[in-house]
Amino acid sequence: MAEPVFRRLALIGIGLIGSSVARIAAERGELAREVVANARTEATLDRVRDLGIADRVEMNPARAVEGADCVMLCAPVGAYAALAQAIAPHLAPGCVLTDVGSTKQSVIRDVGPLVPEGVHFVPGHPIAGTEYSGPDSGFTTLFQGRWCLLTPPPGTDPGAVEKVAEFWRRCGSMVEVMEPAHHDRVLAIVSHLPHLLAFTICGTADALEEESRQQVLKFAASGFRDFTRIAGSDPVMWRDIFLNNRDALLEMLQRFTEDAQAMARAVRWGDPAYIEARIQAGRVIRRSLIELKQA
Amino acid sequence: MAEPVFRRLALIGIGLIGSSVARIAAERGELAREVVANARTEATLDRVRDLGIADRVEMNPARAVEGADCVMLCAPVGAYAALAQAIAPHLAPGCVLTDVGSTKQSVIRDVGPLVPEGVHFVPGHPIAGTEYSGPDSGFTTLFQGRWCLLTPPPGTDPGAVEKVAEFWRRCGSMVEVMEPAHHDRVLAIVSHLPHLLAFTICGTADALEEESRQQVLKFAASGFRDFTRIAGSDPVMWRDIFLNNRDALLEMLQRFTEDAQAMARAVRWGDPAYIEARIQAGRVIRRSLIELKQA
Repeated sequence: MAEPVFRRLALIGIGLIGSSVARIAAERGELAREVVANARTEATLDRVRDLGIADRVEMNPARAVEGADCVMLCAPVGAYAALAQAIAPHLAPGCVLTDVGSTKQSVIRDVGPLVPEGVHFVPGHPIAGTEYSGPDSGFTTLFQGRWCLLTPPPGTDPGAVEKVAEFWRRCGSMVEVMEPAHHDRVLAIVSHLPHLLAFTICGTADALEEESRQQVLKFAASGFRDFTRIAGSDPVMWRDIFLNNRDALLEMLQRFTEDAQAMARAVRWGDPAYIEARIQAGRVIRRSLIELKQA
Repeated sequence: MAEPVFRRLALIGIGLIGSSVARIAAERGELAREVVANARTEATLDRVRDLGIADRVEMNPARAVEGADCVMLCAPVGAYAALAQAIAPHLAPGCVLTDVGSTKQSVIRDVGPLVPEGVHFVPGHPIAGTEYSGPDSGFTTLFQGRWCLLTPPPGTDPGAVEKVAEFWRRCGSMVEVMEPAHHDRVLAIVSHLPHLLAFTICGTADALEEESRQQVLKFAASGFRDFTRIAGSDPVMWRDIFLNNRDALLEMLQRFTEDAQAMARAVRWGDPAYIEARIQAGRVIRRSLIELKQA
């Protein structure tokens, strides 16, 4: 067995991502010698204790990070500023501070200024997930074959970046370093906008008069169902992502809306060639995904 | 084995739906004693011959329907008016004329006036499909456990309606009679709008600058992928559906757009409570689908 990457790993938040990391650490021992889990509620910590996926649970984030050589923020990104405030004075010198949030410019904005001298700040984003949440939802294969993007600020210690990269490779991920603004833009189109559209169409359907709503459920297999899976995801986490990737998300939604309105106009005025051409353009992406075996 | 529902079934169009019906008829013999397949191209008919899924192939729709006691239109709905014109004078007295199109008011508008006296007109819509098309894409279990909606005009012979219902039950479907305008409205939200959104977001992503487009493919697993499956569907079929369910589709898109714009406004101005409430509302539908085992 390889030497663990870290001595003591503090997971601040223990939902789908945090509890998957904890399970991998417990199962393989290659990530960290000791795992401390922190959560906002006693109920969650009790559950973590029952599941036996952490060596120690700790309700107070400041105490959870004491003596840790890696602290990983696994809470909704909207909670990061307050968490950073609480833990910053307690971070050990030389400690690596990382996270798993879906927005990276906001993390650098909210956490960056609070990172003490001598602590290495390596924001990260494992692109993996399901529509489930909480400490029961994690599993050890969640990150296998999935990308993990790191967005270290300029001047970050390369050794610390490499440690985080090695950590995720041991979770089964491919790792890539990316510029944070570019990360947020790409994620806006591949993840944040699709979730916004899925939440919205489910809401639109739910607002129909009772009889039609019943039939939406009955006939969901005809296309609607594909949208509902991702609409089952955690509301607080997604609320925070939308608010913390505002500019890129609104720009992608604006582009999408223009394209949808152009399609609507072609439907209204009867322009078959335009509609067919737009559908064909959309199929290009699908075909590429099939070729790349990502479909 | 039960007596076949029809003596001679003429399938006008032999893509995913038509070729699935042909395969069921060939395999079980309970649908029709004889199946005649019609298509627009020699290449398709050659393929049908090779697949051995019809008793006879016939390039001319007028000749294909001669002597048939059931004619089923399985072409894109935009082709129905011309097809009805071509076949109407050749329909046998007592014949049942039905179809499988996703829009029902347009079928009644385009085909209804051309139906000769003594021919029974029973529009239908098996709510089943995949993103594949053509005679190779059909399979015998396509309709199993799926709904088939019939929208017979007032005064249609109940015996003819029951024959079509029995036909689809033998394909494995549950059958329901519905008012055509209501059908089009329900399908607009559960099927036509989701397809329009999926085609559109794929087009929006495809229009990004080259580097981002490559990364859309790379990181598609984060939500985008769920949208691309249905975006792989047949362009001509969907073009025709959009154009032939114009009013209901534009109304649902308008409702959706208002909801999406309200979400955008909450993101822009930072209204976390609104965003969370909308996501929660969307999740209601997902939870109901899970309870109904339709998820």
